[in-house]
Amino acid sequence: MEYRKLKDQEDDEEPAVGGDAIESLRGKAHSLTNVAALGGGTAIERSKWKRKSIVTFALTVLTSSQAILIVWSKRAGKYEYSVTTANFMVETLKCALSVAALSSIWRNEGVTEDNRLSTTLNEVIVYPIPAALYLVKNLLQYYIFAYVDAPGYQILKNLNIISTGVLYRIILKKKLSEIQWAAFILLCAGCTTAQLNSNSDHVLQTPFQGWMMAIVMALLSGFAGVYTEAIIKKRPSRNINVQNFWLYVFGMVFNAIAILVQDFDAVMNKGFFHGYTIITVLMILNHALSGIAVSMVMKYADNIVKVYSTSVAMLLTAVVSVFLFGFNLSLAFFLGSTVVSVSVYLHSAGKLR
Amino acid sequence: MEYRKLKDQEDDEEPAVGGDAIESLRGKAHSLTNVAALGGGTAIERSKWKRKSIVTFALTVLTSSQAILIVWSKRAGKYEYSVTTANFMVETLKCALSVAALSSIWRNEGVTEDNRLSTTLNEVIVYPIPAALYLVKNLLQYYIFAYVDAPGYQILKNLNIISTGVLYRIILKKKLSEIQWAAFILLCAGCTTAQLNSNSDHVLQTPFQGWMMAIVMALLSGFAGVYTEAIIKKRPSRNINVQNFWLYVFGMVFNAIAILVQDFDAVMNKGFFHGYTIITVLMILNHALSGIAVSMVMKYADNIVKVYSTSVAMLLTAVVSVFLFGFNLSLAFFLGSTVVSVSVYLHSAGKLR
Repeated sequence: MEYRKLKDQEDDEEPAVGGDAIESLRGKAHSLTNVAALGGGTAIERSKWKRKSIVTFALTVLTSSQAILIVWSKRAGKYEYSVTTANFMVETLKCALSVAALSSIWRNEGVTEDNRLSTTLNEVIVYPIPAALYLVKNLLQYYIFAYVDAPGYQILKNLNIISTGVLYRIILKKKLSEIQWAAFILLCAGCTTAQLNSNSDHVLQTPFQGWMMAIVMALLSGFAGVYTEAIIKKRPSRNINVQNFWLYVFGMVFNAIAILVQDFDAVMNKGFFHGYTIITVLMILNHALSGIAVSMVMKYADNIVKVYSTSVAMLLTAVVSVFLFGFNLSLAFFLGSTVVSVSVYLHSAGKLR
Repeated sequence: MEYRKLKDQEDDEEPAVGGDAIESLRGKAHSLTNVAALGGGTAIERSKWKRKSIVTFALTVLTSSQAILIVWSKRAGKYEYSVTTANFMVETLKCALSVAALSSIWRNEGVTEDNRLSTTLNEVIVYPIPAALYLVKNLLQYYIFAYVDAPGYQILKNLNIISTGVLYRIILKKKLSEIQWAAFILLCAGCTTAQLNSNSDHVLQTPFQGWMMAIVMALLSGFAGVYTEAIIKKRPSRNINVQNFWLYVFGMVFNAIAILVQDFDAVMNKGFFHGYTIITVLMILNHALSGIAVSMVMKYADNIVKVYSTSVAMLLTAVVSVFLFGFNLSLAFFLGSTVVSVSVYLHSAGKLR
């Protein structure tokens, strides 16, 4: 539903070109993000800014509700289903939604060079890479728990923020201002502070191998994100649903491998959908929509916006959990949220001119 | 000793005027802080910047060693002496040091309009105000512990940072840039984060009266600091030792009142210096030198620099305590220190042009 709304929004905006023709051309010459960053001026800039805001908002809301579903499912009992089959279903659903969106576009606009599903080896050859990186990362995840406990791993996952920033700079060669780098360090410190509890200090006792694995995992995850952005941005005129389709097809392939490696016996003995509940289905639906929102953010914004969006979502989740589950907010949470809020402000105030 | 070094430094710099005469005059026309902020250029600017750096460094080192002495004295046993008599001795020592510095200046330069000790009612009438404000604050301190425990009070004391920033803006009418305001909020959040421990969440249960008293105390303390700066800066050519002398004379008077109110019986029965140890004497010496360093920072820098200096000192103390007392640093401390470091960077990067 969310996804259809986004698509409609996107279609609505196409004919919104107007205002001064020279300004519009100038706007087109700029990269999408730079233009959007100016917050509009011409109609095309405004509409791009609006689109960027909507996908970012959708990602934030979907990520928050994702975390809430996880809390809910944990309260309802342990995971009884195979996580790998759920991940496979998420990729399959994303693929199906992309094809559904495409067929609607084909009906309205006809098949063009930009929205046709068929592709060249040259275009498609890079698409398996992000999915392969995520597979390696997910396999590593099983081994890191030999060195770190689960809450400690949640803390270490904040290294993703730094690795994404560094790889974004190196691979996409986009510059952040010094103030924006400062904001990025604050985002990482603020998110970690908000997650602090009385056992967090354990993470300081993480052995060297644990730190190395956490750093490698952060780099893999950051690289996968930045590389996905590079793939999607390489062909700006290519329809996002085609790009998503190919990303998700390889996601299905690599998740099928994960099922074979990790859960072959369980699936053979108990069936593919063993242990699925209504919560499992909702989580799959949510993950699929979040995944599509991430792709949209990569297309119309960037990895930095994605990191901010998911970090703010983490804080929103905690606030919503107060009302839903009667959680208490800690002083550390207030302090971390303050730091994250200042970071969001500084990221925007520190924009390079 | 530290103080004499500072004085020598100051005297050394007087004849350091050189370079382009017009540039020097232009330098003089600027306010001290603005010139110092530019980091030099002409010899006079460089020497002012050097003086500002030295007093700031001295304040940081003295404040750190102060906290370490407090930890040491606590380890050695409970306070057996009357705190009010120690405070009175601090003011007396500061007064004596100011007179000693002045008599050296009189011998070298003779008595001038700027360094004579005699004063007018018009000049001296404002000097009792900071001392009176501190007295009220110290008396309130006895009552706030009905609502907050000691570690909670340490957390709430960070409100001083915000109150100083706000009153600095309102009373001294000096502008901070938006980035500097963001840095100031981060300084407060970072210092509080660095102090977090497993019991810190108790502070969130502070009753309304406790919050009100903490806010009033923060405002009193902030107002006293900013007002002292206003007094000292009002007559830039007046010798700082004369200004200090009058500040400390009223400090003695108000601390004498505090002795009468709080410790009259103890002093009468057990004597003025009962319970004094070598640590007590070192603490009095340290407080006196820190107090003089604060005045110097007010004269040659400002309250914002003072707040940064004492906050960084708090972090230094914790690091030094690891080596001296085998303390462990918490994850919260690392996160808070990161946020404070970024704040220091942003304060300087965000300077108004």
